Amino acid sequence: MIQTPYLLFLGDAPDQLAAKVAQGIKDWRPENAVGQLRLPGCGADMGLTDMNLQEGLAAGAKTLVIGVANRGGVISDEWKKVLVAALEAGYDLAAGLHNLLRDEDELQAAAKIHGRTLHDVRVPSVAYPIANGQKRSGKRVLAVGTDCSCGKMYTAMSMDAEMRERGLKSTFRATGQTGILITGRGVPLDAVIADFMAGAVEALTPDNDEDHWDHIEGQGSLFHVSYSGVTMALIHGGQPDALILAHEPTRTHMRGLPHYGLPSLEQLRDTAFPLARVANPACQVAGVSVNTKALGEEDARKCLEEIEARMGIPATDPFRFGAGALVDALIAL
Amino acid sequence: MIQTPYLLFLGDAPDQLAAKVAQGIKDWRPENAVGQLRLPGCGADMGLTDMNLQEGLAAGAKTLVIGVANRGGVISDEWKKVLVAALEAGYDLAAGLHNLLRDEDELQAAAKIHGRTLHDVRVPSVAYPIANGQKRSGKRVLAVGTDCSCGKMYTAMSMDAEMRERGLKSTFRATGQTGILITGRGVPLDAVIADFMAGAVEALTPDNDEDHWDHIEGQGSLFHVSYSGVTMALIHGGQPDALILAHEPTRTHMRGLPHYGLPSLEQLRDTAFPLARVANPACQVAGVSVNTKALGEEDARKCLEEIEARMGIPATDPFRFGAGALVDALIAL
Repeated sequence: MIQTPYLLFLGDAPDQLAAKVAQGIKDWRPENAVGQLRLPGCGADMGLTDMNLQEGLAAGAKTLVIGVANRGGVISDEWKKVLVAALEAGYDLAAGLHNLLRDEDELQAAAKIHGRTLHDVRVPSVAYPIANGQKRSGKRVLAVGTDCSCGKMYTAMSMDAEMRERGLKSTFRATGQTGILITGRGVPLDAVIADFMAGAVEALTPDNDEDHWDHIEGQGSLFHVSYSGVTMALIHGGQPDALILAHEPTRTHMRGLPHYGLPSLEQLRDTAFPLARVANPACQVAGVSVNTKALGEEDARKCLEEIEARMGIPATDPFRFGAGALVDALIAL
Repeated sequence: MIQTPYLLFLGDAPDQLAAKVAQGIKDWRPENAVGQLRLPGCGADMGLTDMNLQEGLAAGAKTLVIGVANRGGVISDEWKKVLVAALEAGYDLAAGLHNLLRDEDELQAAAKIHGRTLHDVRVPSVAYPIANGQKRSGKRVLAVGTDCSCGKMYTAMSMDAEMRERGLKSTFRATGQTGILITGRGVPLDAVIADFMAGAVEALTPDNDEDHWDHIEGQGSLFHVSYSGVTMALIHGGQPDALILAHEPTRTHMRGLPHYGLPSLEQLRDTAFPLARVANPACQVAGVSVNTKALGEEDARKCLEEIEARMGIPATDPFRFGAGALVDALIAL
């Protein structure tokens, strides 16, 4: 649906975390990203070649993907200059921002004049039903986090990649704009109308072969007051057979909420597990996925050992050390 | 803001249950209803004076409120005749139907010609922010249920009425179409975009006097897989100081989900309480509101005694026996 490859627009992202859309594409479909385009003051770097629009075109880019997910998603005048220039130069645009590309008159007009397409992947393209809670065939796993942005999507991506490498039946199910931009399909769950959230997750993960695993992309956190309702809908709509607890061990407060401390992994387990059992009484907590990016190798391994001993279930950093331990745990259920 | 008082349109409602919006207005803001307008074959009766449009105007009505659910999701030609005539006569229209007044060309045109307003209270009329989780001044109470439709709105309405009768500072905060039509304002939470649910609840219950109570209308249930995300957003966006557990003791399965049993009041308490403490560490479970409509007087009193003894907190049916015990419990916190 979205033409590849991409030039990744990082804009004036304050830090690396703010550019998690670009990071996801770089990490999971690097062949789709020819380079990065950054504005003055940009604090993010994907380690790709910095390119202007012409250089991107010369490298084969077809679509300029906005790789920055700001809180509230505002399209500034500075951004707009670049985006209009991109349409003029022959790029399609793709974004997952709350403020839609199509709602910007200048972009709409430029796209029309130059025959280009605006992809707003955050907007649901179909009407979802209200969840019916009926048991579906096949297996599902969902990562739930102590916080937002702590590695839930990477966990699902890693487990899916590992399963497919082993020749197992497996699908990554995107629920956010990054996942949708990477895989080309999914449900933009945070943009779905409240009443239909759980139904959208049911529709995303339909009946399947009994030995097929859906890796549902997690969102938010039951402990993040801004987004906990979305997480709840994933737990009940996804009716997971397995939960993976996701955690970033160096974080000192909930993302964007400096006055909120993080829950412990035990609190997360004891909160998410009974809620998951409402929709699927057979659900198990299968493992812990720890984002150890901020730790050195030795500290990371120590941290994982400590968590594994404490929690009594496999703990790993699937992005750093592979998802083998988590996949083994799923298969053993 | 919907202009009051109202003439209540009952249409051709097959029975009393189909007119639950009108019933709510009649029960909680009788001063807002000058009369009722019924079509031939109407099986509902609010016990108000039957009026035609002219009589309603003469009695002071400003808005014709559709107090009944329509059949088949269609606004029938019979209804439309009356609604257009109402706009011509000088009424605004207000409805909480799934199919919107504004989507009917005839109504849209008549409203424009006659300078009247169409209120579709099911649709959010403003853009809500993402929740910031900041502590707000004033007190808030939220009813959480073992199931949907078990008396949460009536609980909040009753407590609000009791507090105002005692001369205390108190506001009912509507989160559903019935509540919005009754009070003329509120947030249609089930129609809000997922990311903004908690923020909408924050906006609905802003800073207030320290001795002021917001009675937030509950929605759904943490144990109802179709709507639990909405409930979660109320708990975290509302940051209640007090939870009231709401329960219908004769129900055998979750509403609309015949394959799901009800949780116990203990399960509800043990699930909702820690989640509420994330947003407000001072939150307490203050009492139990039991919908005893299906029980005789003696059985109802026995049921309440048993629950009160078991749970160790006041239990009453506020609609049947008054909200005094619950309000006492709130004040004692």
